[in-house]
Amino acid sequence: MTLISEHVETDTREKILVVAERLFRQMGYQKTTVADIAKELRMSPANVYRFFDSKKSIHEGVARTLMGEVEVEARRIAAAPGPAKPRLRELLTTINRMNTERYVGDSKLHEMVEIAMEEDWDVCVVHIECVTGIIGQVIAQGVASGEFEAPDLPLAALCTCTGMIRFFHPQMIAQAVNKPSATIDQMIDFLFRALEPRKAN
Amino acid sequence: MTLISEHVETDTREKILVVAERLFRQMGYQKTTVADIAKELRMSPANVYRFFDSKKSIHEGVARTLMGEVEVEARRIAAAPGPAKPRLRELLTTINRMNTERYVGDSKLHEMVEIAMEEDWDVCVVHIECVTGIIGQVIAQGVASGEFEAPDLPLAALCTCTGMIRFFHPQMIAQAVNKPSATIDQMIDFLFRALEPRKAN
Repeated sequence: MTLISEHVETDTREKILVVAERLFRQMGYQKTTVADIAKELRMSPANVYRFFDSKKSIHEGVARTLMGEVEVEARRIAAAPGPAKPRLRELLTTINRMNTERYVGDSKLHEMVEIAMEEDWDVCVVHIECVTGIIGQVIAQGVASGEFEAPDLPLAALCTCTGMIRFFHPQMIAQAVNKPSATIDQMIDFLFRALEPRKAN
Repeated sequence: MTLISEHVETDTREKILVVAERLFRQMGYQKTTVADIAKELRMSPANVYRFFDSKKSIHEGVARTLMGEVEVEARRIAAAPGPAKPRLRELLTTINRMNTERYVGDSKLHEMVEIAMEEDWDVCVVHIECVTGIIGQVIAQGVASGEFEAPDLPLAALCTCTGMIRFFHPQMIAQAVNKPSATIDQMIDFLFRALEPRKAN
């Protein structure tokens, strides 16, 4: 395969995912067929199947894109200059805001997420590991600057991420309406108490 | 109504709930009908409807009983003597263990819980408030003994409960299999860091 045809292949793959995401949002995941996606792209279903072996694979690709956008934003915050503590707050708040926007406000996308969670996808695991890693980077910056104290850094990142599930997990965000809960800023303050150096004040 | 007939009424209500729970476990919530429950009790469906106006009400009653058992155990731990910290750990671990046993190991009961969560029942809210209150009691005991520090006690209890969602919420417990997560003891250690007095060590 030449470099040019590789480019065309990647382009077609991308186009299928863009159209699939739009149709999943408009019609819902269950009602959208591979034939619908092919029709929008003026190609045969067989051609779509050259790129994705099933509707599930397309679904995984769309989920990967949506999660990837959150990861890009998280990396941008982790790489920004300035003290670690406000950036960790911004990072945690941004993940909450992006997940709320994309999965909860949009009931059709929420259906997609529910299926993803039930089918226990690898994409979810990879995303959780990625986000935990980025949280760990910012905690490490805070340890270096004396803002945080974390004897076991990967564990501190994992506990911070696990402690934020109420604000990160699409199903928990959706269910939390009308349920007793701390606000996100109260929760972050509480977790910061676990991360702050003991002898600081 | 005399006291004796009141007793009979309460007994019948209890019996309906016991039989309903057994049938929900055996056949699943969706497949169990009010007629099935009545048949097991050798009474007419009309008689069951005298006590519960719908299958949903019976479902709520069964959920209330299951959650009530967790609350009884939680209260027992909160009322026990000894230092607060090991008792708070025992309390958090016990809620996790009981919820895992009753909702996750048992796929039929899990179906029941999923419906409960989706229908956003008041019983869930009352249970969360109750558990949060009991957690608050043990934190208060720890504040009194100097083991904990919590300038805002109800908020500390709420954040502890919210931070434990991964280990308390039936759907999160079920989904956590094969997903990156801290262990429950690691998570409790981390939250304890947020509760411990700053100048202690």
